[in-house]
Amino acid sequence: MNELKNDLVLRALKGEKTERVPVWMMRQAGRYLPDYLKLKAKYDFFTRVQTPELATEITLQPIDQVGVDAAIIFSDILVIPQAMGVEVLMEEGKGPSLPNVIKSQQDIDALITDGAEESLKYVTDALSLTKKELNGRVPLIGFAGAPWTILCYMVEGKGSKTWDKAKQFAYTEPQLARQLLQKITNITINYLKAQVKAGADLVQVFDSWAGALSPADFKTFAQPYLVQIADALQHDAPVILFPKGTWYALKDLSQTSAAGLGVDWCVEPKVARELTNNSITLQGNFDPSKLLAPIPEIKKAVKEMIDGFGTQRYIANLGHGIMPNVPVDHAKAFVEAVKEYGL
Amino acid sequence: MNELKNDLVLRALKGEKTERVPVWMMRQAGRYLPDYLKLKAKYDFFTRVQTPELATEITLQPIDQVGVDAAIIFSDILVIPQAMGVEVLMEEGKGPSLPNVIKSQQDIDALITDGAEESLKYVTDALSLTKKELNGRVPLIGFAGAPWTILCYMVEGKGSKTWDKAKQFAYTEPQLARQLLQKITNITINYLKAQVKAGADLVQVFDSWAGALSPADFKTFAQPYLVQIADALQHDAPVILFPKGTWYALKDLSQTSAAGLGVDWCVEPKVARELTNNSITLQGNFDPSKLLAPIPEIKKAVKEMIDGFGTQRYIANLGHGIMPNVPVDHAKAFVEAVKEYGL
Repeated sequence: MNELKNDLVLRALKGEKTERVPVWMMRQAGRYLPDYLKLKAKYDFFTRVQTPELATEITLQPIDQVGVDAAIIFSDILVIPQAMGVEVLMEEGKGPSLPNVIKSQQDIDALITDGAEESLKYVTDALSLTKKELNGRVPLIGFAGAPWTILCYMVEGKGSKTWDKAKQFAYTEPQLARQLLQKITNITINYLKAQVKAGADLVQVFDSWAGALSPADFKTFAQPYLVQIADALQHDAPVILFPKGTWYALKDLSQTSAAGLGVDWCVEPKVARELTNNSITLQGNFDPSKLLAPIPEIKKAVKEMIDGFGTQRYIANLGHGIMPNVPVDHAKAFVEAVKEYGL
Repeated sequence: MNELKNDLVLRALKGEKTERVPVWMMRQAGRYLPDYLKLKAKYDFFTRVQTPELATEITLQPIDQVGVDAAIIFSDILVIPQAMGVEVLMEEGKGPSLPNVIKSQQDIDALITDGAEESLKYVTDALSLTKKELNGRVPLIGFAGAPWTILCYMVEGKGSKTWDKAKQFAYTEPQLARQLLQKITNITINYLKAQVKAGADLVQVFDSWAGALSPADFKTFAQPYLVQIADALQHDAPVILFPKGTWYALKDLSQTSAAGLGVDWCVEPKVARELTNNSITLQGNFDPSKLLAPIPEIKKAVKEMIDGFGTQRYIANLGHGIMPNVPVDHAKAFVEAVKEYGL
């Protein structure tokens, strides 16, 4: 870590002073960059994910091209179900599908658990290679999906607006749901530890569909597993938890082993600070759709966002992944606006 | 109103004492009831909506069959774009589509505004007929979509997870967006007044996609128009505002002319009471997916919900529309659990 030329993100997570606000964008590797789209036209999704040289190339693209303060490894949260022996298909433009959904005790018993993460060597290889290629320019972020979000896909079989099949499973078979969540948690902990060993300087856990749950159900089916992961990783690397849509949990989560919390754009920055009692590093929360606004509007909104969060213990980011239809100039304007703040 | 045999919902909205918690379910007319599905097999969507006898029959079905304390007229929020001259197609199972989206000043200028609501006579006819058929059993609810949600469909052209086209329009052309929102607001006010005249005892305004906006953008593009509608209708009938996903606005909205506020399931009932300073009637907030849980789980969750909201100034409901795949027995169990509370 000492060799990092830019360690702003890590210092923000440690609560140390930063001379300016660090910035990166969720999904910055992939989706909208022309150089990525060229690779996408040549190689299918899992080839891009599973070939360390390609994953590294994609991970590095936004560092120079957009000027972000961290690299996040190009991968997918659904590599965990794959490692557990579940087939995952990815049709371009249609999102993932898992033909064999989890329904029963037998389905859960049939999952690969011991050493499942070993089949994900292509991710750790990509991290090692990326770490080397980065040559200390910026920190490298590893990641995984949160257990609840992974359960959502494993039970629902595809994306959903309501996740009602996943929720029905949790409400009807809570013991099976807990078994499945615990299995995913155990593998995820090993997987994230392996990522840190391979070169990740910090890790983020994406609970993208946590917001489908009520506060009480989030406390039952999502929060305990997020906390287990943060606890298990705390001596390995800083952990950022990002359960999207769960403003009500910010207070509880600010008192865990997590080093940082992601915030979506449906919470005012000042309110997020109040809810967390100014006690933890926050990351977010620019409305991804606002990157489609004219550049002067983007710059104005970035300024308001930083005014709200303050410049310390803060990492500027979006409130969800960047969308494929964002012009590169607009992504750059977002990053520049953060860097220019206060100058 | 004096002739109503069951005026629990109206008394709850006026802040008067209710001997038990009143209950109804958003989308209770249509979707999941076998008798509705028979009509659906015979008549297409807009025939069902535009034929007062059919709309009345569908509206009345849940009153006896499920035992709710209010009837809500069977209709659709997209009748407003239709009345403004915009084509709306409804493909069963696929949701609505509007082939000619709003993009420019010319598109907005071409909209029918003066007297647009007059083409919606089939809705007021359905309300009059339903009011007569109800014969005072329960109050009749009229409704409309909120201006922001209607703009979403008119600009996006179909349903969306992110509403990024609608948001891009609002962020890029805020003056056009305000013009469009104001036109929708004016028509909606006339339309809701006509609904009250025709027999609606109260009206609800659904801002289903308000939660796509940040708090600042909600205050710009949604809240002012909700407030205008509540102000304009306050001497006609009680108004319930339901901007889904905007917990942060509960305080502001509790200080408007609205008689009640809808709450989704992502807010704890006690927190919703705190945010509104116990000063307004609240409605909600059962997770619609929880109607897929076993009946004992439904009953337990209903009890917890009412424990949280309290029994006064409260109308039990879902936090969003009932889903088509809910077993009728589960819907009944929800209603029964509310009625049994405290017995």
